[in-house]
Amino acid sequence: MNNLKAYVAEFIGTLVLVVFGCGTAATIGTSSEAGTGYLLTALAFGLVIVAMAYSMGNISGCHINPAVSLAMTVAGRMDIVDFAGYVVAQFLGATVGAGILVAIVGTDSGLAANSLYNGSFLASFLIELILTFVFVLAVLGVTSRSEFSAVAGLVIGLSLTLVHIFGIAYTGTSVNPARSFGPALFAGGDALKALPCFMIAPLLGGALAGVCWLFLDDER
Amino acid sequence: MNNLKAYVAEFIGTLVLVVFGCGTAATIGTSSEAGTGYLLTALAFGLVIVAMAYSMGNISGCHINPAVSLAMTVAGRMDIVDFAGYVVAQFLGATVGAGILVAIVGTDSGLAANSLYNGSFLASFLIELILTFVFVLAVLGVTSRSEFSAVAGLVIGLSLTLVHIFGIAYTGTSVNPARSFGPALFAGGDALKALPCFMIAPLLGGALAGVCWLFLDDER
Amino acid sequence: MNNLKAYVAEFIGTLVLVVFGCGTAATIGTSSEAGTGYLLTALAFGLVIVAMAYSMGNISGCHINPAVSLAMTVAGRMDIVDFAGYVVAQFLGATVGAGILVAIVGTDSGLAANSLYNGSFLASFLIELILTFVFVLAVLGVTSRSEFSAVAGLVIGLSLTLVHIFGIAYTGTSVNPARSFGPALFAGGDALKALPCFMIAPLLGGALAGVCWLFLDDER
Amino acid sequence: MNNLKAYVAEFIGTLVLVVFGCGTAATIGTSSEAGTGYLLTALAFGLVIVAMAYSMGNISGCHINPAVSLAMTVAGRMDIVDFAGYVVAQFLGATVGAGILVAIVGTDSGLAANSLYNGSFLASFLIELILTFVFVLAVLGVTSRSEFSAVAGLVIGLSLTLVHIFGIAYTGTSVNPARSFGPALFAGGDALKALPCFMIAPLLGGALAGVCWLFLDDER
Repeated sequence: MNNLKAYVAEFIGTLVLVVFGCGTAATIGTSSEAGTGYLLTALAFGLVIVAMAYSMGNISGCHINPAVSLAMTVAGRMDIVDFAGYVVAQFLGATVGAGILVAIVGTDSGLAANSLYNGSFLASFLIELILTFVFVLAVLGVTSRSEFSAVAGLVIGLSLTLVHIFGIAYTGTSVNPARSFGPALFAGGDALKALPCFMIAPLLGGALAGVCWLFLDDER
Repeated sequence: MNNLKAYVAEFIGTLVLVVFGCGTAATIGTSSEAGTGYLLTALAFGLVIVAMAYSMGNISGCHINPAVSLAMTVAGRMDIVDFAGYVVAQFLGATVGAGILVAIVGTDSGLAANSLYNGSFLASFLIELILTFVFVLAVLGVTSRSEFSAVAGLVIGLSLTLVHIFGIAYTGTSVNPARSFGPALFAGGDALKALPCFMIAPLLGGALAGVCWLFLDDER
Repeated sequence: MNNLKAYVAEFIGTLVLVVFGCGTAATIGTSSEAGTGYLLTALAFGLVIVAMAYSMGNISGCHINPAVSLAMTVAGRMDIVDFAGYVVAQFLGATVGAGILVAIVGTDSGLAANSLYNGSFLASFLIELILTFVFVLAVLGVTSRSEFSAVAGLVIGLSLTLVHIFGIAYTGTSVNPARSFGPALFAGGDALKALPCFMIAPLLGGALAGVCWLFLDDER
Repeated sequence: MNNLKAYVAEFIGTLVLVVFGCGTAATIGTSSEAGTGYLLTALAFGLVIVAMAYSMGNISGCHINPAVSLAMTVAGRMDIVDFAGYVVAQFLGATVGAGILVAIVGTDSGLAANSLYNGSFLASFLIELILTFVFVLAVLGVTSRSEFSAVAGLVIGLSLTLVHIFGIAYTGTSVNPARSFGPALFAGGDALKALPCFMIAPLLGGALAGVCWLFLDDER
């Protein structure tokens, strides 16, 4: 029953991430000329984490990202049953969120689906791997000390903004299989074809960050 | 007597919100081309919360928004008498603030009154409902744990910035009946006609967030 | 002897404020079209506070602004001898800082001296009064509770950014007699003639905030 | 063995700083017209600190900058053996990071190597001295009180953003010999010739900040 609430929290959080994060990208745009839309998109994704971390965070930890849940499982902080429940809730939330987004902006906007950099699966895969590794390392670090609990949501949000500032120019930045899945489902076409990259690379990057943290962290 | 100070604090805080938030929008503009004015407006609204939360927050909790006061009442954290007092103070503050704004920028600026998206009451209503639900959920979450008290003002301010980043492009973002009321009173015309949307939708969104939080929160 | 260190800290802090805050404005510009330079300037002033508050703040409280020191004195948190010492150190720091700025950007830049809005002393005075009142109220509030000590520098910095976001378009935002004095001394001309406005209005705004806080604050 | 982990943490942190900080500059650009790329670059460098401070910070203190490590040694908080180990790890990390950057953006981008302001070694040296002095003073201050431990990473990150906001227009902002070394190695030419300035000035600025802090800090 307590876990049901956690799943509901993950569902709501991921839904809000897609509506506000992808929604800002689809509405204001992410011009390659580094217009303000680029910055607004990077901020929107980060600030969703801030807004949700201090409400849903109390209920579920506010992963709202299968790569984060996988890293938590690898790092031994979550069991496999909850991992499955969280991931299902995240994909459902992202899908409903993308549906709401379709109602608001239509599918012509592309729904901010992630796309391959220069059409290259390999380049995009490696970039997403690096982006997710750095993001998840920050998540694991800041959530591993109770003295950081008050600022953890701010730190994770700003870290997500960071990987968007660097990554939007390349892949649009996924670092989150659920965030890529929802919009791709409705956008179809190339977005759907590129989806395997944005499903696998973030999970692998998150798992590597989990392993790296197990090595680095002394205080377990 | 203690409550009188709280009402004064809500009056000052809402006045400052309208002068600085709506004032930035009216002065620097919120171009649809995602210029820096868009970002400056989103930041101004958020930073007013930061500035006021750590001064007025000590006195009244710094709601400066009837939707927040309603959610606090729904969530059982405020009685109905204080709710009425707060809301009256907020509307008075917003009205005086809008008057000051008229003196500074004149009414030609439009005073950053909220307007219907594509002229649609329904679309604007639903968007404001979503924006306010997310914003108030963040407020309820971060104010429900004493360990977050030091960062609550930062988190609420950044959450208000978030709902502006996504929402300015649609309705100019209200999420606050008092913030919409003051400027509309002086701007008149379409702003006044659109006012019912921006009075009702934020209150409904806030109330829904209050109900949602009652379900999710385990530690009451 | 301990006070000497506090005066040195105020000297360094105010010097850094002028070099980095006014320096960013003079270097990157504050275009009236709301370009990024406007935002960068508002951020620079705020972030100087963040950088200095956690170093000089430990030594002197990091006022680096005579209006803040006056408000602290009015609110009964500082004696008149220290007030005088702080203010002398702040004016010296701002003057040396402006001298360094002349060496870097030359006087053609205008050194980001404050100027009257539409040539009106009265309008500029009232705007600076409001800006300083809000800024100093935030300072007094966040520094009055020990539970906020860790975030106080962030909150004060962001509040200074706020009054720049709204105020740059009008007077360039002073809210600080020392910050206006240094650049005006080297820029001369209109900047020097406008100086009385930016010396008196911030002090009055700060004093009013001090009085207001004495009324509002219950926990003295 | 524990120290080995600290060196690995410094290696990873500095690598991430170069890939994400220099990478954002090289990808999005830092136009002299104060476009959004300028702000994005300043934010990227600051947010890398935020992301790394709460993960690597637990292991090594997250200096990821020889100027910071030197200041810590001068201020008596680090021994000479660890200083050497940290600096080697930082230069290795920056070099590998620059190599990764070459693979992503190619060398035509210039890799965001620092360059002399108007071709002047002296001017660039003095500017870097000031920038590093202010940045390292903030680092020493915020890390000297345990009550600030939760916000230290945010404060240091925002301080690095500050010195970028002011300094990018002049030298591109180094304040970090390792950050300058990596990209210059691959960019060659003028970047390599300018390197001595960006190796020595930050170290001297950091050492001066260490001495200044020894004078100011009462609570040692």
